[in-house]
Amino acid sequence: MKNANEIKFLKNRSIVKFEGEDFLGEIGIDGRIFKALTLARISVGVISQQAIENGISILVQENDAEKAVACLIDEFEAERKSGKVSQIYSINNVSVIGFVAEDFNKVFAELARNNVFPLLLNQVAGENRVNIVVTSSQDEKTKNIIESEIFKKPKPVHLAIIGHGNVGKTLIEQVLESSEEIKRRKKIDLKVVAVANSKKIAFNKKGFDANWAEEVLTAEHPSSVQELINFSNENQLENLIVVDNTASKDFVKNYHALAENGFDLVSSNKIFNTLPIEEYRKLRYTLSKNNRRYLYETNVGAGLPLIDTIKLLHLSGENITRIKGVFSGTLSYVFNNFSLRNDKFSTIINEALEKGYTEPDPREDLSGNDVARKLLILARELDLINEFDDINIQNLVPESLLSVSKPEFLSRLEELDEEYQKIKENQEPDHVLRYVGDLHGDLQKDKGELDVKLISVPATSALGQLKGSDSIFEIYTESYGENPIVIMGAGAGAQVTARGVFGDILRVSETK
Amino acid sequence: MKNANEIKFLKNRSIVKFEGEDFLGEIGIDGRIFKALTLARISVGVISQQAIENGISILVQENDAEKAVACLIDEFEAERKSGKVSQIYSINNVSVIGFVAEDFNKVFAELARNNVFPLLLNQVAGENRVNIVVTSSQDEKTKNIIESEIFKKPKPVHLAIIGHGNVGKTLIEQVLESSEEIKRRKKIDLKVVAVANSKKIAFNKKGFDANWAEEVLTAEHPSSVQELINFSNENQLENLIVVDNTASKDFVKNYHALAENGFDLVSSNKIFNTLPIEEYRKLRYTLSKNNRRYLYETNVGAGLPLIDTIKLLHLSGENITRIKGVFSGTLSYVFNNFSLRNDKFSTIINEALEKGYTEPDPREDLSGNDVARKLLILARELDLINEFDDINIQNLVPESLLSVSKPEFLSRLEELDEEYQKIKENQEPDHVLRYVGDLHGDLQKDKGELDVKLISVPATSALGQLKGSDSIFEIYTESYGENPIVIMGAGAGAQVTARGVFGDILRVSETK
Repeated sequence: MKNANEIKFLKNRSIVKFEGEDFLGEIGIDGRIFKALTLARISVGVISQQAIENGISILVQENDAEKAVACLIDEFEAERKSGKVSQIYSINNVSVIGFVAEDFNKVFAELARNNVFPLLLNQVAGENRVNIVVTSSQDEKTKNIIESEIFKKPKPVHLAIIGHGNVGKTLIEQVLESSEEIKRRKKIDLKVVAVANSKKIAFNKKGFDANWAEEVLTAEHPSSVQELINFSNENQLENLIVVDNTASKDFVKNYHALAENGFDLVSSNKIFNTLPIEEYRKLRYTLSKNNRRYLYETNVGAGLPLIDTIKLLHLSGENITRIKGVFSGTLSYVFNNFSLRNDKFSTIINEALEKGYTEPDPREDLSGNDVARKLLILARELDLINEFDDINIQNLVPESLLSVSKPEFLSRLEELDEEYQKIKENQEPDHVLRYVGDLHGDLQKDKGELDVKLISVPATSALGQLKGSDSIFEIYTESYGENPIVIMGAGAGAQVTARGVFGDILRVSETK
Repeated sequence: MKNANEIKFLKNRSIVKFEGEDFLGEIGIDGRIFKALTLARISVGVISQQAIENGISILVQENDAEKAVACLIDEFEAERKSGKVSQIYSINNVSVIGFVAEDFNKVFAELARNNVFPLLLNQVAGENRVNIVVTSSQDEKTKNIIESEIFKKPKPVHLAIIGHGNVGKTLIEQVLESSEEIKRRKKIDLKVVAVANSKKIAFNKKGFDANWAEEVLTAEHPSSVQELINFSNENQLENLIVVDNTASKDFVKNYHALAENGFDLVSSNKIFNTLPIEEYRKLRYTLSKNNRRYLYETNVGAGLPLIDTIKLLHLSGENITRIKGVFSGTLSYVFNNFSLRNDKFSTIINEALEKGYTEPDPREDLSGNDVARKLLILARELDLINEFDDINIQNLVPESLLSVSKPEFLSRLEELDEEYQKIKENQEPDHVLRYVGDLHGDLQKDKGELDVKLISVPATSALGQLKGSDSIFEIYTESYGENPIVIMGAGAGAQVTARGVFGDILRVSETK
C-alpha cells in the first residue's frame, strides 16, 4: 500500500443478494456461483457469506448487476424451482468505502450514533483493513466520520440553535469565541450550522462565523423542524445537537421527532419537563430507544451545578430528604432588598422592573409559577411523580389585581405595600423575608410535598445571607445530615445561563 | 430461524488466510479457490474477501485447516513460485459467534471498549445477522457482552476496590445496598469482584455479598496488581473499574498498567494528581491512548460537585479568575470553634483529635500540606502547570515543634495557645479566623499564585458563616462577576466521600 491511511471510495456499485434455504454451507455451492459469474465475465468484490444463515452477498459494478442476477438465476434454475433458492436480486446505488483504522469498532460506533448502518461490512484484522458498503445517500457522511476517526481529526459537532434572543445570542458568541480552544484541547469541532427564531431558520453547512446575525436576517427558509431535518439529511451531517433556548410551548412538541432523527437535545426551556408525567416519561422512552441524550442543567439555577448533582446523588443511592432554596433571581432581588431597605414594596418592584430583572408584567414572577416549575423539575429528578397541580403556590399578587390589565396592575402597584409592610414588621427580630421553593415530605413515596411560599428566616442563616439576585439551593440528604450541601450563585442572567447551556453541549459532545 | 435472538456459538474453528498481490479481483480466482476446497471435500464458512486489498480469509473446521492449506498450496503452486501468492496459512483455535442485534455497532463498540477485536467480522444488514470470529481466549467474554447487549440484560460492571478502610468499607456497603435499584433503573449490574488491602487481595467472580469482609479475611492471594490483571483475564471480565481508596504512594504507580489493561480508574487518593506535572500529563496521555477514564471528584471537597463544575466551566471557555475556600474539614472545625468559643487553641485541637477529626498526629493537618494538595489539584484543572513547591504554605505548627515525636508534640500542645490567642484578639471587630486555600493571580498565564494561610474574615461573610466541619469553595469567574458560585457542605467523612466515589463509578459506568 502506498498510503496506509488512504480511504478508498468506490461509487456506483451494486450488491447482488442470493437467498435461500440453509444449503450454502454445502460443498460446491460457492464454486458454482463463482463459476457462473466468471463465465459471464463479471469481476466480484467484497463477498459476504453467512456461516450460519442462508444468505450470500456479492459486490459488483453497478452496470454488471443485471447481468450477474440473470446468470445466477440461470445457473440455479433447478434450485429456484425446488425452492432451495428463494431470491436472487440486486441492491443498486451503493458505495464502498475501504479504510485502515487502529480501532475499527470506535468507527462503527460513531457511524451507528449517526444512524449509518452499513449494508455490508467486511473486516479482517490480519489485513487491518475494513470495507463497508453504504447507500450513496449516506456515503459522504460516512466518509467524513471515518476521516475524523482515523486521521484523529477534530470531530465535528453540528449545533442548531433555536431562539437567538438573549441567551441564544450569548451562547452563539461564547461558542464562536471558544471553538478554536476546544478543537485544540478536546478534538471537538463545534459548528453552529443552523440558527432559528419563531419565523425563520438560517443554515450554514460550514458553520456560522461572527456575521451570523446578518445571515439570519436575510434567511429565506420558514422556521420549521422539517426544514432542519431535511437540511441535516441533504448535507449528511453527523453529530447533531438541537439547542432550545426558547420558552416556547410549541417547539417542545418537536423533541420526539428530533430525537428520532438523530438529534441530541440541550434545552434551557423548562416547558417539556413540566408537562404531565406521562409526556415526561414518553420522551425519556423515545430518547432511550434512539440512544439520544437530553440535558437541561439550566432549567433550574442557570449555570449552577444543581440538576447533575441531584441526579448523581439520587442514582448512587443517597437518600435526599429535602431540597429548599430561593429559586428565582428576580424574587431574590426583590426580597433581599425589601428586607434590608426602608423602601416600599412597590418601589422595589418598580426598580426591579426598570433594571429588567422582572418580566415585562411582574405578575409572571410574583405568581410563583416559575419557581413552581423549577421545583417540579427537581422533584421529578428524584423519581417523584408529582404534577404541577400538586404544588402549593403562594401567589404574591392579591386576588383583586390578578385579572386586571398590565398597565392597570402597574399603576395600582402601591396597593401591595400595606400587606407586605405588615408581613415585614411582624417578623421576629433579625429575620428577613425569602420567597422559597421547598420539596419535602417522605420522598421515598410516589409523591413529595411541594411548597412555594414567602417565609421569614434568621438573617444569619444561609438563606438569610443571600445577596443581590443570587439563587441558593440547600440539598439535605441522609449522609450529609443536618448540614445540607449548599449551592449558591447567580441563578439567572444571559451570560451564566448561556455558559450552563454550553456546559451541557460539551457534556453531550464528549460522549459522542 | 426458530429463535431470532439465539446466539450461535461455534468453537474449534480455523481461519485459512490466503495472501498475495492484488490479483484477487481477477476473474476466476475465487472459483479456483472454492473448486480446490470442494475437491478436498472441505466445507467453508464465513468468507471474507477484501475488495481492494490483497487478502482472503476462509473459515473452516479446525481439523480441516491443515488439509485446506495444503490443497490451496497445491492449486496455486505456479502463483506461489511467481510471487503472486505470498502466503497461505491458518490461524487455529478460534470461535465463531453469530447473533442478531438491533444495533450491531453498539455491540462492536462495547467489544472494543473491552479490548475484543474480532479477527473476522461479517455483517449483512439484509439478513440482520452478524458473525464474528475471535480467539478462544476471549470467546466467553465476547459472548457475555453480546448477550448483555442484545437481550438488554443489565450490563455487568466489575469493580476492584483497593483499600477497605473507612471509605472503602462504606463504599462497598453503599454499592451492595443500591445495586438492585441501579440494575433496575439504569441496567447497570455493579459487582464488586475484588477487594484488596496492602497485604492481600480477595476475588469473587460472581461479586461479593454482605459477607465480603470474611472472604477478605481468609483470602490467600498476596496483594498485587498483576494478580488482579490475571484474574480479570482468566475470567474474561468486561467493564472493569479500579477504585483506589488508599492514600498510598505506591499504589498510584500501577495506574498506567491498569489503564493499559482495560481498567478505568476512580480514585479518592490525591497522590497521583499532585505528582510533578510531567507525570500528571503522562497519565492523561496513557488514558487517552487506551480510551480509559480517570475520575477523582472526591480529591477535593469529598462528595461536593467541585471538580466536575470547574472542569466544565473551564472547558466551556468561562474565565475562572479565583478559587478560594476552606478546603479542610478538620481545620474548618478547629477554627470555626476557636473563633466562637472562649477555649484555648490546644483545647480545641485535643477535642478534634478525640473526635477523630484530625489525623493521629494533628501536625499532618496543621502543616497545611493536605490543603495545599487540594489547591494544586484545582489549579491543574485550569491547565495551570504549578508544582507543589510553588505553593506558599503557612504551617500552623511552630518551628520548635516540627521535628519532635508525636507524644512530645501532644504533650507540648499548649505552647501554641499564646500565639493563636494573640492572633484571635488582634482581629477587627466581628471577624473570625479561617484557614483557607486561595488560587489567584492571572490565571491565563502558565502558573497561578497558590496560597494556603490563616486569614481573618467578617463573621457575616460566606466564609465567616461556615459551621461545624463544613468546607466551602468560592469560584469566581468573569460571567459570575463579584458574586462567586459558592459550593458548601460536608467536605470530609467516610459516608460523603464514599458517596462521591460512588458517583464517579456511576459516571464511568454510564458511558461504558
